[in-house]
Amino acid sequence: MPLTVGAESFAFEYPVVVQWGDVDRMGHVNNAIYARYLESARCAYFAELGLGDARSSAPGAHDGAAESGLSGEVGPIVARQAIDYRRALYHPDVVHVHVATTRLGRSSSVQRYVVTSEQQGGAVVAEGEVVWVLLHYREGKPVEIPAPLRARIVALEAEAGRAIEGA
Amino acid sequence: MPLTVGAESFAFEYPVVVQWGDVDRMGHVNNAIYARYLESARCAYFAELGLGDARSSAPGAHDGAAESGLSGEVGPIVARQAIDYRRALYHPDVVHVHVATTRLGRSSSVQRYVVTSEQQGGAVVAEGEVVWVLLHYREGKPVEIPAPLRARIVALEAEAGRAIEGA
Amino acid sequence: MPLTVGAESFAFEYPVVVQWGDVDRMGHVNNAIYARYLESARCAYFAELGLGDARSSAPGAHDGAAESGLSGEVGPIVARQAIDYRRALYHPDVVHVHVATTRLGRSSSVQRYVVTSEQQGGAVVAEGEVVWVLLHYREGKPVEIPAPLRARIVALEAEAGRAIEGA
Amino acid sequence: MPLTVGAESFAFEYPVVVQWGDVDRMGHVNNAIYARYLESARCAYFAELGLGDARSSAPGAHDGAAESGLSGEVGPIVARQAIDYRRALYHPDVVHVHVATTRLGRSSSVQRYVVTSEQQGGAVVAEGEVVWVLLHYREGKPVEIPAPLRARIVALEAEAGRAIEGA
Repeated sequence: MPLTVGAESFAFEYPVVVQWGDVDRMGHVNNAIYARYLESARCAYFAELGLGDARSSAPGAHDGAAESGLSGEVGPIVARQAIDYRRALYHPDVVHVHVATTRLGRSSSVQRYVVTSEQQGGAVVAEGEVVWVLLHYREGKPVEIPAPLRARIVALEAEAGRAIEGA
Repeated sequence: MPLTVGAESFAFEYPVVVQWGDVDRMGHVNNAIYARYLESARCAYFAELGLGDARSSAPGAHDGAAESGLSGEVGPIVARQAIDYRRALYHPDVVHVHVATTRLGRSSSVQRYVVTSEQQGGAVVAEGEVVWVLLHYREGKPVEIPAPLRARIVALEAEAGRAIEGA
Repeated sequence: MPLTVGAESFAFEYPVVVQWGDVDRMGHVNNAIYARYLESARCAYFAELGLGDARSSAPGAHDGAAESGLSGEVGPIVARQAIDYRRALYHPDVVHVHVATTRLGRSSSVQRYVVTSEQQGGAVVAEGEVVWVLLHYREGKPVEIPAPLRARIVALEAEAGRAIEGA
Repeated sequence: MPLTVGAESFAFEYPVVVQWGDVDRMGHVNNAIYARYLESARCAYFAELGLGDARSSAPGAHDGAAESGLSGEVGPIVARQAIDYRRALYHPDVVHVHVATTRLGRSSSVQRYVVTSEQQGGAVVAEGEVVWVLLHYREGKPVEIPAPLRARIVALEAEAGRAIEGA
């Protein structure tokens, strides 16, 4: 069941508990920590897709890469990240990071993030945009997003009624 | 209802979701991050006691200090921290940080921490000891732990059948 | 003496030593850490201007706010941050974060960042843009950037031959 | 030339610039960040010895392991860490982390750390103790510290006139 934030629907959402240590000297959650919240949500989003970045860090863990048509040496890296800070965020709180894929290129993709705060009644505290590129880590070169992974992303976003640019 | 870890009982426990960013280059949760997990649990433990370190960082928030016999300028600081790393910890996982007060001095106190891992079947991944001192922040001087706060700590630990040294 | 990066001049630069802990599981500096590098440079840039965010955190420290026409309750907050990751960054290394003000509004300002790597022969590893707003912390409202602070920013950027949009 | 802190000599010292983001809501450097400072110094200490933990994270980098009698799959992990916080630390500042090996076991070793602050006139702000174990990462088993590495540690500490327990 898709989640609604304002007039927008999301097929994926990841909750993060704000920790005391996330707050900086100003008394609010530090701007760099928002990038950590997005990262945690992105990792869970990728896990849902069976993508490499989300594989367990435990030795010998199954990483689901094969089902996505990926080898273990290929995974997403962040090429660009933009965050708009809409409201200050305080501790304690639980934020919900909503993730959607808005564009699919040959080897890159654009994601939209909307972060809401439980303590602030579900208000949007930040919006973000991330461009990731599928990379062959050792060779350092972009790799075409394989068809099974594209299909999974399209299917996930269709749950929220989202058409993806380029898909 | 107290929680049991091995042969030990704890009145307080705080769960922390391991984030992808907590893992370092070695593939396991970085040693400094354990101190963050302990801090989050300590903060929640203090919140349960109405102690200052746990007050909300939001402007104008009620901080519960009065009920503990504390003014807003007084709070706990960490004077010593020791962590024994028993097992490597991986992402994804949820750890449970168990906290107990083992000693109460005039203005300082000793806490014991035991961290368990869900992914490792509840195995102990770390044990910690923290000495905190109640400090007047502006004056930088230790302050006697007020009777209401001592009584709260004793009552909380009694739930787990723990007698506190010095109490 | 202004610093040159490619065809561009900067009046301000701040070096940051890459720490082992800045590297994530992928073996390169984590994307969120770049926001920390920008923050450290921004803070030093503000210190050069006598602006509040840079004041010492030590109790009783002189914060230079008065010379900038600011009271202690007013300071900059980050409203937007965008980072383009151009190259992977490794440990050990020293990065140089170049900062320039490119726009001055009534109560907000835009900064440009260019991060270079010593180990990669001065190559640009990231570019960033930050929008900051001068805020009255307690009231949570934007405050007009005072004339002395505007003049300092204009004078600093003039050293690099930069004209500031809106100034 | 060995460095002297109080009545103590150290053969190795590593400077760390305190970053704005190292300071927490209390206005002083957060307790967990001290573990990061120790880690950075430990890494540099290991690099001086040619030990694996310090090898560059860049792909294809020479890691110096061979000269220490180590294969690439073997390296040190932290088994225990204790930090005594002697004084609050503020931003801006530069700390100097002094490292010494005080004990050498078959596969483990004990290090002593003393952290001093430039802003506080070289005063000791923290002392630490770390027990590390040489581990075969894949097998998860302790490995005997090879003779060349032992010899390097002994030689380094001899520069400060330190005899190492167990060596």
